[in-house]
Amino acid sequence: MKLEEIQDKLKEFLNDTDCYEHCVRVKDMCNSLAKQYGLDVYKAEIAGLLHDCARKHSADELIYMAEDLNIPITEVILTEPHNILHSFIGALVAEQTFNITDQEVLSAIKHHTMGASEMGLLGKIVFIADKIEPARNYEDVDKLRKLVYEDLDSAILMTYDIVIKELLETKKIICDQIINARNKILFHIQTKTKIL
Amino acid sequence: MKLEEIQDKLKEFLNDTDCYEHCVRVKDMCNSLAKQYGLDVYKAEIAGLLHDCARKHSADELIYMAEDLNIPITEVILTEPHNILHSFIGALVAEQTFNITDQEVLSAIKHHTMGASEMGLLGKIVFIADKIEPARNYEDVDKLRKLVYEDLDSAILMTYDIVIKELLETKKIICDQIINARNKILFHIQTKTKIL
Repeated sequence: MKLEEIQDKLKEFLNDTDCYEHCVRVKDMCNSLAKQYGLDVYKAEIAGLLHDCARKHSADELIYMAEDLNIPITEVILTEPHNILHSFIGALVAEQTFNITDQEVLSAIKHHTMGASEMGLLGKIVFIADKIEPARNYEDVDKLRKLVYEDLDSAILMTYDIVIKELLETKKIICDQIINARNKILFHIQTKTKIL
Repeated sequence: MKLEEIQDKLKEFLNDTDCYEHCVRVKDMCNSLAKQYGLDVYKAEIAGLLHDCARKHSADELIYMAEDLNIPITEVILTEPHNILHSFIGALVAEQTFNITDQEVLSAIKHHTMGASEMGLLGKIVFIADKIEPARNYEDVDKLRKLVYEDLDSAILMTYDIVIKELLETKKIICDQIINARNKILFHIQTKTKIL
């Protein structure tokens, strides 16, 4: 399926201009980062475009779909069901509605909100593209936009730290997943620095 | 065993004036908080006094003792073995060297560094007394010293948030345990507020 066809189908499927335009900006960001890091541009664009394809579903619908997938609905998920589940269910929607079978693309969609301990290059690019696309506006976003072209892992770590601080300040629950992912990349960076 | 006898024994056992004096200050803080919250003052003082009794052991000794207790030595622990393990091993030392058998006291010692999801009143008091004893000096410590007499749970949550922010800023690994404990008390506070 051509990128343009997927993009047209997504526009109709989402039926939400703001969300659709955000997806297009993330796709463009993924294009740029894929070129920087030598990744298949088409795959990066598809993953960027479809990362929020499940955003149109309500929290209740997402919980229902998650139960169907045997995802345990924990207390943590119930505090922010839409935010946490739309990425997991996004992988399912991308597969069933947009016929995506590439496991790397599906995994990148699945982990774009909170990251994961074991993210490949595509996962990292989609995760950070979502946080720095041109419409994002928060303290340090410009630092991050610069850093991402110099050192992807350090930019990912900085993103995790920004997200966790925001969760602390807004008194929201923090998922284990983002902490484990942040610990893993911190450990990786520190070990690499020691070796060098 | 009388408190004075335990205190004298601890002084000799630690053989470290700074650590000993910190323990005495935490004991005094526990005394004050126990009175505020209607807790057995003797138990609070014992737990406060002995909370750091395993600090004298080196990281290697603590790891050796932890392995003996079947505590899994994870990558996370290996990044900060002394900080993380001295509280767990402290419960063992308190039992074996100071003949403490009270499970609440042992549990409060065990969890005084990172807190825990299921902390009783004694655990909470020792945890926070350690963070606000008079020699502690950091931004917001005076706010915390005031809050702890008004709302213990909110003070505990604020302490977790301060510790986690410090771990982010100093690029240190964050244990799951402190995140889970922070989520639990946040959830508890928010649920209580909704009911009220």
